[in-house]
Amino acid sequence: MGQQPIITLLTDFGADDGYVGAMKGVMLGILPNVNLIDVSHTIRPQNVRQAAYVLSSIYPYFPPGTVHLVVVDPGVGSDRRPIAVRVPGACLVGPDNGVLSYIMSSEPVHDVFELAHPRYRLHPVSDTFHGRDVFAPAAAYLAAGVEIAALGPRVVDPMRLPAPRLALDGNVVHGEVLHIDRFGNGVTSIGRLVWEGLDLLLRPSFGAVVDASVRIPSAAAQVAVASQILQGVHRIYAEVAPGEGIALVGSDGYLEIAVREGDGAAVLGLELGDSVTLSF
Amino acid sequence: MGQQPIITLLTDFGADDGYVGAMKGVMLGILPNVNLIDVSHTIRPQNVRQAAYVLSSIYPYFPPGTVHLVVVDPGVGSDRRPIAVRVPGACLVGPDNGVLSYIMSSEPVHDVFELAHPRYRLHPVSDTFHGRDVFAPAAAYLAAGVEIAALGPRVVDPMRLPAPRLALDGNVVHGEVLHIDRFGNGVTSIGRLVWEGLDLLLRPSFGAVVDASVRIPSAAAQVAVASQILQGVHRIYAEVAPGEGIALVGSDGYLEIAVREGDGAAVLGLELGDSVTLSF
Amino acid sequence: MGQQPIITLLTDFGADDGYVGAMKGVMLGILPNVNLIDVSHTIRPQNVRQAAYVLSSIYPYFPPGTVHLVVVDPGVGSDRRPIAVRVPGACLVGPDNGVLSYIMSSEPVHDVFELAHPRYRLHPVSDTFHGRDVFAPAAAYLAAGVEIAALGPRVVDPMRLPAPRLALDGNVVHGEVLHIDRFGNGVTSIGRLVWEGLDLLLRPSFGAVVDASVRIPSAAAQVAVASQILQGVHRIYAEVAPGEGIALVGSDGYLEIAVREGDGAAVLGLELGDSVTLSF
Repeated sequence: MGQQPIITLLTDFGADDGYVGAMKGVMLGILPNVNLIDVSHTIRPQNVRQAAYVLSSIYPYFPPGTVHLVVVDPGVGSDRRPIAVRVPGACLVGPDNGVLSYIMSSEPVHDVFELAHPRYRLHPVSDTFHGRDVFAPAAAYLAAGVEIAALGPRVVDPMRLPAPRLALDGNVVHGEVLHIDRFGNGVTSIGRLVWEGLDLLLRPSFGAVVDASVRIPSAAAQVAVASQILQGVHRIYAEVAPGEGIALVGSDGYLEIAVREGDGAAVLGLELGDSVTLSF
Repeated sequence: MGQQPIITLLTDFGADDGYVGAMKGVMLGILPNVNLIDVSHTIRPQNVRQAAYVLSSIYPYFPPGTVHLVVVDPGVGSDRRPIAVRVPGACLVGPDNGVLSYIMSSEPVHDVFELAHPRYRLHPVSDTFHGRDVFAPAAAYLAAGVEIAALGPRVVDPMRLPAPRLALDGNVVHGEVLHIDRFGNGVTSIGRLVWEGLDLLLRPSFGAVVDASVRIPSAAAQVAVASQILQGVHRIYAEVAPGEGIALVGSDGYLEIAVREGDGAAVLGLELGDSVTLSF
Repeated sequence: MGQQPIITLLTDFGADDGYVGAMKGVMLGILPNVNLIDVSHTIRPQNVRQAAYVLSSIYPYFPPGTVHLVVVDPGVGSDRRPIAVRVPGACLVGPDNGVLSYIMSSEPVHDVFELAHPRYRLHPVSDTFHGRDVFAPAAAYLAAGVEIAALGPRVVDPMRLPAPRLALDGNVVHGEVLHIDRFGNGVTSIGRLVWEGLDLLLRPSFGAVVDASVRIPSAAAQVAVASQILQGVHRIYAEVAPGEGIALVGSDGYLEIAVREGDGAAVLGLELGDSVTLSF
């Protein structure tokens, strides 16, 4: 049996209504054997940056040929374009509002096309639910083998989100809280951090311009966030006492702020976008 | 490779317990290659009408041969019958409490059978979890190709939910709030509305008796709901300012009440079942 | 077409972040045709006992050859071992913290192996996300047909959770609240209860030592929990008035505490671990 095509779904539609189900039905109608993989449907409503971050965190782990469908679309019904992006080994489908742009920054070779051809849409196209009428059909046709260039004209100026803040000023790295996860861990934009002996090596990420060769002594480093100072950058939670705040290198190589066996965001008062500095 | 059979799941079991997992296991045991598609498991507990609405909103989008399994079953263990319904192109499985009846109203040709044959149940059948012991096996056997009439005797009087309120009185259409979605949008029973030039054409839905040829001038129309008056019926949110209330035609053709970039239900005080009038 | 391999997923990662998606991508990269089945991702954070209970409740319903992947892993990054367990007809993959031990207790024949072989891991292995880097690859390789003994050395002393409290003292059975479900029903450790005429037959469960032949007259029995006394053990909710508390035999044979058409846990003040006594 041939390989089953894979489409992942990432939306802010929630899991309580029929929106996601309708999208799944549309895709199964076009490609009955597709393997539909839920990533999340509880992106905060209309939070494009959160969706862009989550997409970039799962993207490296899927096999070649995967289609990633992302519908976080505050501009539905306006003139924002629906697009598909081909990067090496995957296709991305979603609105041209920046939600796909972190991947575009990390994959320099990519082609972008507008989802314009009426053959690859439902009819009529509603004004408020392009997830079902425009994006889901495009994802299914791509997974079925339709050439991306058949979907519509090439887009040369796709919208880009500003790269997450990441700057080096002397011995201080400036970043921000990019994501707060279910456990209250604050993922920051400071990364990718790679352990090298007792030092951390800071490498550029999301297209941010940071000198790739900065070494940071992990034990002597100091992290400041939300009026807290945290000493050292750690590998695992168990290096501090339960209830204590900790800065550590997360599973994707970003500096994370957490509280051992606690809700870091609640205990430390973290908010999305908070400034974080790592000094050494 | 043949087409993979599809079963959708719609329940109020939540996603925190093992109930949905047990149902999935039962179906995979009967039909290992089935493509199980989660629609929602967070229907409000025992809210039969909400489930009936969500089912009717996803049903048109699935391919022929899909089996839709719905378990919102406050009467489990009483003498309410478990049933399967064959409509053109699909089978529905669930309790005979009206949860399948919106589809029966919109699909005039249908056959209903009681899930009575012991061969198509788990044994013993528990008193409190027919989702696992009665409904899931029936759905899997139907998807595997068992004839629906083999499941048990024909049912001639399946329970019907009252159709959602929809009445025309002179120049006033009376309806109700049928569903409130994750974004706080209130979906009403006033539909299906189809744009015809600058007018809306109101068509009957869910079997409600409304003259099919009513034209409503969309700009001059007025919507009253929850002590609010909203002017005009719009196509997209961007036609009002952020934070303002708006009446618009939703993606399934029903009149919707929303607040641009806000939570309509919270801001306007919408509740399920609230009266809505559209006057013109 | 051959049978599609099945992997179930049970975690406390929530559905809002990319953690589950990354695990799914890893498994699809190893075994593209795998049928990934979500059981739950909303186990209370780090609640090993809740996950062990949910796993034991779904395990009997899946077909032979299923791989169950469980990641509730407060000790990630410490020296707790990652393990795989072979029981008749299934494999279990997860941390060696007891989360798999209820199944080991109910399946006396089992083999346990440490997930140590570098061939069956991602590289590098992060310190904080073994779900993606260690457990997901192991589950996929097992589902793909790799021999469990190839994953690493045999483990002779896997960690066991204490069996849920269950003791018989004269005419009193002592147990505890093991799980509170979405409806507020409290599942207790008193089981498995089997109806025999008007009596209940209490059978040992989870390896707890209880005389297998205790008969309990169901109508005369009395249940005490959270300062409440409930009369009788019932079959269905409809045997009490709406809003009233009820003790009944749940769908898996355990004594359950509920309130008809209400949230039992909220109304009665149930908490996980509360003592429950059944006297007769």
